[in-house]
Amino acid sequence: MPTSMQVGMSTVLHVVEVIGVFVFAGSGLVEARRKKMDLVGVFTVAFITAFGGGTVRDILLDRRPLFWIENYEYPTLVFIFCLLVSPFFRQLRQVVTEKVILYADAFGLGLFSIGGTSLAYDMHMPLFVCVMMGVITGIFGGVLRDVICNEIPMVFRRGQLYASCAFLGSWAYLLLALLGVAELSAVLSGIALTVVLRLLAVRFDLKLPG
Amino acid sequence: MPTSMQVGMSTVLHVVEVIGVFVFAGSGLVEARRKKMDLVGVFTVAFITAFGGGTVRDILLDRRPLFWIENYEYPTLVFIFCLLVSPFFRQLRQVVTEKVILYADAFGLGLFSIGGTSLAYDMHMPLFVCVMMGVITGIFGGVLRDVICNEIPMVFRRGQLYASCAFLGSWAYLLLALLGVAELSAVLSGIALTVVLRLLAVRFDLKLPG
Amino acid sequence: MPTSMQVGMSTVLHVVEVIGVFVFAGSGLVEARRKKMDLVGVFTVAFITAFGGGTVRDILLDRRPLFWIENYEYPTLVFIFCLLVSPFFRQLRQVVTEKVILYADAFGLGLFSIGGTSLAYDMHMPLFVCVMMGVITGIFGGVLRDVICNEIPMVFRRGQLYASCAFLGSWAYLLLALLGVAELSAVLSGIALTVVLRLLAVRFDLKLPG
Repeated sequence: MPTSMQVGMSTVLHVVEVIGVFVFAGSGLVEARRKKMDLVGVFTVAFITAFGGGTVRDILLDRRPLFWIENYEYPTLVFIFCLLVSPFFRQLRQVVTEKVILYADAFGLGLFSIGGTSLAYDMHMPLFVCVMMGVITGIFGGVLRDVICNEIPMVFRRGQLYASCAFLGSWAYLLLALLGVAELSAVLSGIALTVVLRLLAVRFDLKLPG
Repeated sequence: MPTSMQVGMSTVLHVVEVIGVFVFAGSGLVEARRKKMDLVGVFTVAFITAFGGGTVRDILLDRRPLFWIENYEYPTLVFIFCLLVSPFFRQLRQVVTEKVILYADAFGLGLFSIGGTSLAYDMHMPLFVCVMMGVITGIFGGVLRDVICNEIPMVFRRGQLYASCAFLGSWAYLLLALLGVAELSAVLSGIALTVVLRLLAVRFDLKLPG
Repeated sequence: MPTSMQVGMSTVLHVVEVIGVFVFAGSGLVEARRKKMDLVGVFTVAFITAFGGGTVRDILLDRRPLFWIENYEYPTLVFIFCLLVSPFFRQLRQVVTEKVILYADAFGLGLFSIGGTSLAYDMHMPLFVCVMMGVITGIFGGVLRDVICNEIPMVFRRGQLYASCAFLGSWAYLLLALLGVAELSAVLSGIALTVVLRLLAVRFDLKLPG
């Protein structure tokens, strides 16, 4: 029987996961609207942004059913979200400021990445592959979004650190897990490091050389 | 032993399927020629347009062997089709008018979409996932064609209803199947609705808001 | 126990394979630098160019673990390669001339293609599918590189024969294998034909009609 502490943590993770899905879906919606797509385009791009990273990871690792087929209420919710939000796009953008999106996206990146790393680690993948799976889970939704919207993927251009935060956070998680730290603590530390690094990168305009 | 009625229907479906493959392959060929690709490009784009949707669906659902590996005469025929048609491209475009392409494409969309939905339904997927698989089967060949040809996918731009026809046709099929209507009748009704909706959309210039 | 001859051959193939991986990774690195990507972009594009063709093939054939997960030292080496080479990019381009890249790339194409064909043949795939898998293994890394870099894939544009060399080399390999020639001889002949055709195509500016 799970203790109330465990239940509390798993509920927290679940809530953060749902937030992550909607933040990523929202970023796809914004991009699709910018490209003047119709509702079908908006939903597809939102869907791919939210679930693309996890789908690529699951295909590479041959995990089935896919994340969003097992939890099929997620794509349904994203669909309803697009139906409801799309007409009020202009008004919403005034309420949801850039800063809110940025914070939420940092949390989504942290959660998706460390979730992906942890999942590959549970499958006994080599460490470097675990980290790659983490980074893929975190960033590939955005990569596919940009490819479909006919842009060079944002994460590959010389912007503020993004994938690198997921990379370092994933290694931190793995290090703690290898040292025998409890799974949940390791996961939360990895997420925290990724999120903090990302917010610092934005705050102080940190970039990679290139 | 199948009755002659069943044989007749399955032959009809098979013929329509082959037509669907060639229509979609043809639309890839046209696009590749417009982009001044050589024969390799023409075949690859034709192939991806014809088989891309079903391949993405089969990968997402982990079905093997893939549709076009099981029926490997299809890619072989598409290859021969490209070899033969490519040199006479200009002449052919005068015989095969836009209207013919449009009708044929509507049939291809209907057949591919409802075929995909029905296949996911047979695998006991959740209903919304069945519809998504149907739409993916119907439109993703064209999406991949446009991504490779460096365009924003046509189906996501604000054109006449396309994916939405597949979406509604798929729901109609599911509804009939859930009501206990015979598989074949449900499939044919779904296809018919998709095709009619698509032709109406073109005829009356119906569009989604966006 | 393998004879010294066999060991010698397998070592040769292994060395050529590693060379192939780095040549393809290098071509991704060059393209990513041209597009002004940062280190994350450089690594991702290098990785996708080197492993993309084999990954698409393995996903289509449902082979797991993937080539680069089984040999996870390869992506690790590519990562270190990008870390080391990226800062000295300008100097390196003066030492590694276009001609060196072209020769190496021809060898990579030959090895990857015939390797892919042979693998599909071992899985008893239909002959045309074997050839397609060979060509996909040889060229799809470059296709994905170009799609991510927002270009129409180089191999589909009207350049000197490229995919066609892999196509002919793959058929040559299959023909020899079907005639009962020893696997290694058939493989080496296929590779040799692909490489020679490619170098001839560059030397005499051979192109496909289109």
